[in-house]
Amino acid sequence: MILVMQEGATEEQVQDVIDRMVDLGFTVHRSTGVVHTVLGGVGPEEAVNPADFEEMAGVKQCRRITSRYKLAGRPFRPAGTQVKAGNHLVGGSALWICVTVSGASPAQLETLAPTLAAVGVAALRVRTPLRANDETLQAAQRAAAAHGLSLVLEVSESTEIGLADWYAGMLAVPGRSMWQRGLLEELGRLRKPVLLERSNAATVEDLLISADAILRGGNYDVMLCESGIRTFVTAQNTMDLALIPVAKKYSHLPVLVDPCLGTGRRGMAPAMARAAVAAGADGLSLDIHPGSESSAAAQALLPAQLMPLLTEVRAIASAIQRST
Amino acid sequence: MILVMQEGATEEQVQDVIDRMVDLGFTVHRSTGVVHTVLGGVGPEEAVNPADFEEMAGVKQCRRITSRYKLAGRPFRPAGTQVKAGNHLVGGSALWICVTVSGASPAQLETLAPTLAAVGVAALRVRTPLRANDETLQAAQRAAAAHGLSLVLEVSESTEIGLADWYAGMLAVPGRSMWQRGLLEELGRLRKPVLLERSNAATVEDLLISADAILRGGNYDVMLCESGIRTFVTAQNTMDLALIPVAKKYSHLPVLVDPCLGTGRRGMAPAMARAAVAAGADGLSLDIHPGSESSAAAQALLPAQLMPLLTEVRAIASAIQRST
Amino acid sequence: MILVMQEGATEEQVQDVIDRMVDLGFTVHRSTGVVHTVLGGVGPEEAVNPADFEEMAGVKQCRRITSRYKLAGRPFRPAGTQVKAGNHLVGGSALWICVTVSGASPAQLETLAPTLAAVGVAALRVRTPLRANDETLQAAQRAAAAHGLSLVLEVSESTEIGLADWYAGMLAVPGRSMWQRGLLEELGRLRKPVLLERSNAATVEDLLISADAILRGGNYDVMLCESGIRTFVTAQNTMDLALIPVAKKYSHLPVLVDPCLGTGRRGMAPAMARAAVAAGADGLSLDIHPGSESSAAAQALLPAQLMPLLTEVRAIASAIQRST
Amino acid sequence: MILVMQEGATEEQVQDVIDRMVDLGFTVHRSTGVVHTVLGGVGPEEAVNPADFEEMAGVKQCRRITSRYKLAGRPFRPAGTQVKAGNHLVGGSALWICVTVSGASPAQLETLAPTLAAVGVAALRVRTPLRANDETLQAAQRAAAAHGLSLVLEVSESTEIGLADWYAGMLAVPGRSMWQRGLLEELGRLRKPVLLERSNAATVEDLLISADAILRGGNYDVMLCESGIRTFVTAQNTMDLALIPVAKKYSHLPVLVDPCLGTGRRGMAPAMARAAVAAGADGLSLDIHPGSESSAAAQALLPAQLMPLLTEVRAIASAIQRST
Repeated sequence: MILVMQEGATEEQVQDVIDRMVDLGFTVHRSTGVVHTVLGGVGPEEAVNPADFEEMAGVKQCRRITSRYKLAGRPFRPAGTQVKAGNHLVGGSALWICVTVSGASPAQLETLAPTLAAVGVAALRVRTPLRANDETLQAAQRAAAAHGLSLVLEVSESTEIGLADWYAGMLAVPGRSMWQRGLLEELGRLRKPVLLERSNAATVEDLLISADAILRGGNYDVMLCESGIRTFVTAQNTMDLALIPVAKKYSHLPVLVDPCLGTGRRGMAPAMARAAVAAGADGLSLDIHPGSESSAAAQALLPAQLMPLLTEVRAIASAIQRST
Repeated sequence: MILVMQEGATEEQVQDVIDRMVDLGFTVHRSTGVVHTVLGGVGPEEAVNPADFEEMAGVKQCRRITSRYKLAGRPFRPAGTQVKAGNHLVGGSALWICVTVSGASPAQLETLAPTLAAVGVAALRVRTPLRANDETLQAAQRAAAAHGLSLVLEVSESTEIGLADWYAGMLAVPGRSMWQRGLLEELGRLRKPVLLERSNAATVEDLLISADAILRGGNYDVMLCESGIRTFVTAQNTMDLALIPVAKKYSHLPVLVDPCLGTGRRGMAPAMARAAVAAGADGLSLDIHPGSESSAAAQALLPAQLMPLLTEVRAIASAIQRST
Repeated sequence: MILVMQEGATEEQVQDVIDRMVDLGFTVHRSTGVVHTVLGGVGPEEAVNPADFEEMAGVKQCRRITSRYKLAGRPFRPAGTQVKAGNHLVGGSALWICVTVSGASPAQLETLAPTLAAVGVAALRVRTPLRANDETLQAAQRAAAAHGLSLVLEVSESTEIGLADWYAGMLAVPGRSMWQRGLLEELGRLRKPVLLERSNAATVEDLLISADAILRGGNYDVMLCESGIRTFVTAQNTMDLALIPVAKKYSHLPVLVDPCLGTGRRGMAPAMARAAVAAGADGLSLDIHPGSESSAAAQALLPAQLMPLLTEVRAIASAIQRST
Repeated sequence: MILVMQEGATEEQVQDVIDRMVDLGFTVHRSTGVVHTVLGGVGPEEAVNPADFEEMAGVKQCRRITSRYKLAGRPFRPAGTQVKAGNHLVGGSALWICVTVSGASPAQLETLAPTLAAVGVAALRVRTPLRANDETLQAAQRAAAAHGLSLVLEVSESTEIGLADWYAGMLAVPGRSMWQRGLLEELGRLRKPVLLERSNAATVEDLLISADAILRGGNYDVMLCESGIRTFVTAQNTMDLALIPVAKKYSHLPVLVDPCLGTGRRGMAPAMARAAVAAGADGLSLDIHPGSESSAAAQALLPAQLMPLLTEVRAIASAIQRST
């Protein structure tokens, strides 16, 4: 930790700060300059909020040196992580494609699964209430299994993990639940891949801290997923595709992109899907509307859009030598 | 709902849109202009996402007319709501003051409670893990009861409601949990006041939709609380004090402000507390550090700051004739 | 314009609103519903700020139907605009590449120009103070001309246009100057291409309104350029690549992307350059550092990065059939 | 400057960084830790962009220690600055009130001036095109002089300064022009007060850097003005009232607030005006509509709102002992 005192800070103020650092277990190195006194501290940085020091009298700024996540950090696995999800590897040379459907009937799921498998989709995500002995969930499980797809279900509270674990091969945490510490800790005890979506108010550091909470429980199969941030631009989200190179610099975990949630618009999602792959994403999460065209939600791609889009993104992946 | 077709939209596109509206239960009124065709629809707006229409071919824009919240809206109770919280009224002429302590020991809670009561604080909020037969929680309950304070506890998941309800007189939803639909629905079944904090990524509409989810369950004792939004300005939150007049225009619910969470800084919180009261807030939620000065968290006021601040904000309330 | 009255608005309030609309030249159509009265107005929308009506008593919301830009809008030229810039077409099948250097010496410019031309760069942008008889500007002009590059210079105030016009074949408006109405109007009188950068606080509508101000003067050769927006994510800018499909939907003007300014980081710019092309950008604006590696600014690519990056983005363009 | 090397940075990388620092004139102190090597540098920090170092191989983070503004910083004048504006002091015990009118006729200005003077307004700001021998500007000058008001005019380009200086007693820089370096330098050569508005995309540091550019020219009479920032909340601006305590901590310059521009809404401005004064603002800038009620712009207060608002804000100022 590095702490800079204000111009004109008194010796007593410097001493108060040093005392607090020592109390917290830091070894302090002091450097007295013409204008500013600088204190370097080696110790339990992760347990300290630098802002707490910045509110002490005479302190100008205080910064961490070490990261607030360890296991999610790139130095932990410099070569990168590949997550085994069913028959597929996420973070390998092939693009991993997950398709999400909302409110589909059992019959629709049975029709959809072979179509998806045929175009190389690896996972099927179903948005539906989690219930024991539920017909839709059973149909989803059967359809996924029959066609080699991983079934993905969402969990927002820790109490939902049991049921989701029963049905699914992979669990997804929606962005809004990314901050629920109890949920993350429970997921750390699972031995199943977790798709962790970025909250629309989260920085990359926030996201890696949440991932770290899962990894610390011993579950290393975590995938990150960019799905848009809240900005002044629009009532919808803004896609922050720079997350891809940034997360890959700071972390070893695979990075996915959800251009449907991230833009909220079927009309913009294909362009952002192509951009994501060109920027180095390890895969895509795409919403598909299973029913008739005139009832599709704004963010859901029409089935007819899927095949051409997958052809395009694979051509891009190949153009940047991803698959070699 | 009002829907504007693009310049040059075809008759077939107009018809597709009308068909979808009618299917959803809308009565449609069509107005054909020189440049734009406009469709007005009366029907189940709350069940429709206007973006779904905007992604249909030929549609330029689609807007709701009615609000997405009914019970939380001002027209439901034009005169405003007063929430009875213990011996106090929130939304009445007196400022309601809630003080939060984190990680306090039973002994500290016992010392703090009479001090707070003596300066007119109405509620004591304790941040501590929820556990049955927990010594700290029991001490908090005793101390609050002995001095006429409402005890406030936080709930992040619906499973925590039982214990919180057992100990506390009021439940608080932290901003990050404001989106958890299941939690809000459970709180609607309680008959205890709920303090609903605004997520740092929520608009006022988002907040009122969440409040509505509690009210729909029959629990009308909901207080809104501004606690900062995420902007480009700072790693901390930015206080959006304009929420006060805006929420009061659109809703009948009392509006509180938490300047400690909202700024994350003891040095900025008093100015924002004064500003909040001057802008018409019904009360304040303030963090206090119970221990020695040199260990206080950045956002926690020192006990010595409390009394002068309360004197100031009451003088301001009186200057704007709040208490008459 | 469409105006919705509040629930319970009085007849007098409705009449006041109608009177103001009529005074402003609108023909008003009234529709009285069970809950809301809706007023539709046909008239001079572009001269009206809907917020002015929303502050009138009894008004719930007021929205424009027509766009605030006409000439920059897609319906004005449905097939899209191609801007002729020297020997190149921006918005054509080939990617247009502009390279920017800051603080280069005349000798460096002379060395750089043939290298850039050799790899297919179309334009050279030089950041240097504008001065008459300036050696650097003369060298830039000579070097650009000798190698078939368009010389691009920046203008921030209308008084700079004369000199920039003298030296350059194209003028660039930095994002921060995008709002200067006088500057835009002067540029409308030029007959030279203008590269209009998006301010980091501008929506796509803001950008198209600024472009419109140039087009209205009769200068139709305007290119839009995304160069990052200010969000909570980082002290740098966040690239908003969704601007590409959005601007192409609403406007006929070519869309460029500046991934160097937009990320502020050499390490992130190549990924964003690839993403931009995959998303459909018509070209790229790239910062290059002309001197030795150890003195490069954070956002400037090293010369050795340029050639591989151009190879990659062309492969992507070809993968999505841009060049056919 | 403090620079932290990445975990595992090579000795060669460390040496490259040290070489660049020394080349730039820094004296470097090296501290080799178990995990991170830290380099402290004393030298010309203001001329260096820390991001430039962060893009060098092996560097984790780089931070300035000294501020990027000197003359605008609090240590330059710890007791604070009072700006003499006509007969009034800005930053003194009395609240300084400036009223802005747009598009007023000469007759309206003559009527308005005595009314404003009578309720203690100190300055009249007129939004009108700057032209020599202009009737409106002459009327504004006469009316202001006759009633002891400072006349304030806006300048967006440096070429406008001459005329504005001729007519006005104070110059205002609208937020959008806050970044124009040439304009700020010219204003530094004036000997007249400058009201510097914050851009809606500026941090407090950005604002103080712009103020510094004026002060460096020898013009110390600069007032800062918060007028709203762009966030996800609304198409309008969000008021960032925390700027008041923050700017007062870091700078000695007076801080004003413009609640009309900052909210864009007559209905929200009074609450924010009260809040600003309670938070410690030195004054207010308020839009007034001079004509009939039914034609007022959304952000302009009606004349009838002014007097009660001034009474309220003065009562608040008095409640917090501002005027004693």
